[in-house]
Amino acid sequence: MNYTDFDKTAAWKTLQSLAPAGKHFDFAAALTADRVKACTVPMAAGLSYNWAAKAADEPALAALQSLADEQELILKYQALLDGEVMNTGEKRRVLHHLLRGQSGKPVIHEGRNLGEFYTNELGRFSAFAEAVRAGQVRGASGKPFKNAVQIGIGGSDLGPRAMYIALDNWAAKNGHKKLNAYFISNVDPDDASAVVGSLDLAETVFVLVSKSGTTQETLANELFVKDKLAKAGLDPGKHMAAVTSETSPLARNPAYLDSFYIDDFIGGRYSSTSAVGGVILSLAFGPAVFAEFLSGAHEADICALEKDIRKNAALLDALLGVWERNFLGYPATAVLPYSQALSRFPAHLQQLDMESNGKRVNRSGAELAYATGPAVFGEPGTNGQHSFYQLLHQGTDIIPLQFAGFTNSQRDDDVEVDGSVSQTKLKANLAAQIVAFAKGKDDSDKNKLFPGGRPSSLIHGKQLTPAALGSLLAHYENKVMFQGFVWNLNSFDQEGVQLGKMLTKKVLAGTSGDGALDAYSELLGVQF
Amino acid sequence: MNYTDFDKTAAWKTLQSLAPAGKHFDFAAALTADRVKACTVPMAAGLSYNWAAKAADEPALAALQSLADEQELILKYQALLDGEVMNTGEKRRVLHHLLRGQSGKPVIHEGRNLGEFYTNELGRFSAFAEAVRAGQVRGASGKPFKNAVQIGIGGSDLGPRAMYIALDNWAAKNGHKKLNAYFISNVDPDDASAVVGSLDLAETVFVLVSKSGTTQETLANELFVKDKLAKAGLDPGKHMAAVTSETSPLARNPAYLDSFYIDDFIGGRYSSTSAVGGVILSLAFGPAVFAEFLSGAHEADICALEKDIRKNAALLDALLGVWERNFLGYPATAVLPYSQALSRFPAHLQQLDMESNGKRVNRSGAELAYATGPAVFGEPGTNGQHSFYQLLHQGTDIIPLQFAGFTNSQRDDDVEVDGSVSQTKLKANLAAQIVAFAKGKDDSDKNKLFPGGRPSSLIHGKQLTPAALGSLLAHYENKVMFQGFVWNLNSFDQEGVQLGKMLTKKVLAGTSGDGALDAYSELLGVQF
Repeated sequence: MNYTDFDKTAAWKTLQSLAPAGKHFDFAAALTADRVKACTVPMAAGLSYNWAAKAADEPALAALQSLADEQELILKYQALLDGEVMNTGEKRRVLHHLLRGQSGKPVIHEGRNLGEFYTNELGRFSAFAEAVRAGQVRGASGKPFKNAVQIGIGGSDLGPRAMYIALDNWAAKNGHKKLNAYFISNVDPDDASAVVGSLDLAETVFVLVSKSGTTQETLANELFVKDKLAKAGLDPGKHMAAVTSETSPLARNPAYLDSFYIDDFIGGRYSSTSAVGGVILSLAFGPAVFAEFLSGAHEADICALEKDIRKNAALLDALLGVWERNFLGYPATAVLPYSQALSRFPAHLQQLDMESNGKRVNRSGAELAYATGPAVFGEPGTNGQHSFYQLLHQGTDIIPLQFAGFTNSQRDDDVEVDGSVSQTKLKANLAAQIVAFAKGKDDSDKNKLFPGGRPSSLIHGKQLTPAALGSLLAHYENKVMFQGFVWNLNSFDQEGVQLGKMLTKKVLAGTSGDGALDAYSELLGVQF
Repeated sequence: MNYTDFDKTAAWKTLQSLAPAGKHFDFAAALTADRVKACTVPMAAGLSYNWAAKAADEPALAALQSLADEQELILKYQALLDGEVMNTGEKRRVLHHLLRGQSGKPVIHEGRNLGEFYTNELGRFSAFAEAVRAGQVRGASGKPFKNAVQIGIGGSDLGPRAMYIALDNWAAKNGHKKLNAYFISNVDPDDASAVVGSLDLAETVFVLVSKSGTTQETLANELFVKDKLAKAGLDPGKHMAAVTSETSPLARNPAYLDSFYIDDFIGGRYSSTSAVGGVILSLAFGPAVFAEFLSGAHEADICALEKDIRKNAALLDALLGVWERNFLGYPATAVLPYSQALSRFPAHLQQLDMESNGKRVNRSGAELAYATGPAVFGEPGTNGQHSFYQLLHQGTDIIPLQFAGFTNSQRDDDVEVDGSVSQTKLKANLAAQIVAFAKGKDDSDKNKLFPGGRPSSLIHGKQLTPAALGSLLAHYENKVMFQGFVWNLNSFDQEGVQLGKMLTKKVLAGTSGDGALDAYSELLGVQF
């Protein structure tokens, strides 16, 4: 396989020559009913990806296909599935796809079949969750557990929390909800104190999540919680399970009800489909729901193997994002799901994308001369319409938009007002926004003029079910992966978090060795 | 007063000539203990604004002072306080400062003293909140109210919700918390259904908030709630108060327990200190807490009248933002409070900033040739460190950072681990990040190299109290206002929301007249 910096490819030159056409793409003329119907790609679990409102014509599409072929994106994906060391900096395999099913060769590491290992852990935590839900595993006082609290940060928090919120209403409506889930992440003591203070600890099981077993915030919060349990007269060992790696201090530790394992090949931001997301989701909604979620993700992983970019939603989404970032010059992108259930999905994508591709060196450590990952932010619609959409419509920068929407709500509890139910209003708003952003509106009063030319994509489906959510999650994981391959960087490490950690340790040890750092610490009242 | 486009000022040319120095500002050399101590501006309610880690030297500061003087920023602010029509598009005064106290001339509108009007409404809703809290006003079944649910969207949701979350722990700790507050905003029926489904309606009072009384989402959610109340055998009129304008259909309507009034001079995103935020916060925490919040904001409004940019935090913050946006070329900014209580404050600032200054025409409606409002996003620290900070440290774009932190937590409930309590770890992380972003770190392994040169500001104080929160809120309101004056635009209208509303209505009426819009509606399963 070839690993070439993007600006050294033939496709780079072609795309550069096409950029002026992209910048002046005539949405008002191009965006017809026929285009909306034609520009659609089926995704896993019944979802579809529509790119009609992207500034891309036939020559651009052809050039993006050539780029995909030239950078061997599908070959690289297959190599990743087959267990090749794609996390070059840390010299690790990248195996989150294997959590959902076998899509490549069996991956044998130090004599162990890792697909079997992940399946085995899935079985173990599924059984644990069933036992808790059935009241067979109980707290120290003998009460069954009603609450599950995840203690974790970063990928151990954002993804699992977003997935929990995404499925909470669906699970409640369909009779799967049993435990309420809560999350403690921040080292700010008010976070743990407020969550713990709101719950009956006798009815609460904690899930401690740290791959390394050394995450500062998570260990501080673990001890915070154990202290409260002890003060409530409850044996902490009866109220806490761990998710970690087998080499961590948390592993095989009798201080926990049980420990469930992942390994170094599951990155934090890619861990929602591992025990990191699986234990808490299975406790709340049951292992069967989690299994459906995995099956949607697995199906999406298979779809992402297709070489024709017009038939591979994740690949096409990735390439259109590169087109906008490197050739149209748009530095940010907004994620706008028209679904309250996806209220924290943008925060998860923000981590997934910005932590994966916010890099300035290539996979071999050489500096890159082109823009990589964009800034990502978002809130659910219609809420955002009454907030930052003003800038999206009439600001001086163009920010590409990623919409999502569903035919049906999750709770099927609606009211008709002025001739339509709320779900219909929600969808009408979504359709209207796409067209408003793309086509704009002329006006002799320039303050009421909408320039249009603001591109967007739309992922849509019938309902946000567990399988649809898995499909959506894997779509974005695979999109980000493909973009990393185009940019020839390593999407799977995060060296950018290290310097802050190191300086924090020095402050806490009183040995910062930097006058400014000491001065800031003093301003903030850091005391030892 | 002169109203001049920014690129026509003398300061524009001076700042342009200084831009290369700003882009190559040597943080490693400049950021000393002395600079950290010197670059500090006192704010209201005991907060301070520190700009030591900004790429600004003496010549840049002098040029920014000249800009402030040349664009008459303080004169324009004083004119706004005096009730001049500063919302030029809608021909309205801009009076949110008057909600907090008199800082200009008395404002008489159609024979009415508006300062007295706002004070009178404050008194009325304070009394209502007291009566609810005391159990004198009760629900239809005679039960006292334990829950208050705000129904509103945009500024009627984001600001009040962020303020509620910001003070919840403080109020609980200090014995002021009485009602739990919840929020329904989205037209997605799952939003209202989930909130309503989780509460005992007999113990719940709703606060319906819509200035115009015609907001589609809010009216749909009102009827959703009334339907549920009626089905629960509860008279909806005994469970709902309204916040609106006197000319709206909701005003003086016997269908509500009471109605509290604002007017067209209080913009949605500036309404947290009006009845829009005041009713729900007073119900939850009591009128005395809300009064402290107002006093902090009022004090900040007074501070913002200072002409010396080195003594006026809001003004300096605004000017440094303009410096970064127009001359250093940074298109986005991140808001990073090291306080879990401020977890939704970035979402409020996102609206405040992007809806106010995301404009492409000047206050007279002529197109502008320079960049205006940046994209704004953020999450609380330390959470963000384990997420998108990777891109902030090592991405290819520079994104200026707005930090905040406090000496003490709100709940004063902490645990010592490895020689420090969590609050100390939180602050050590914050100090470390500022220095890591600014100074970076060289490394022969380029993947572990931090380029530095990433500017930030820090707002800090002893504790996030109601007065400190008011100070913080008003700081940002005034910052955004000053930036709007520099850019010579109208920060107080939002014409960018209109086109989407219009197209939505057409879709719902089945008369879109646009093939693409009909096709999108069909994809989403819009039915009539």
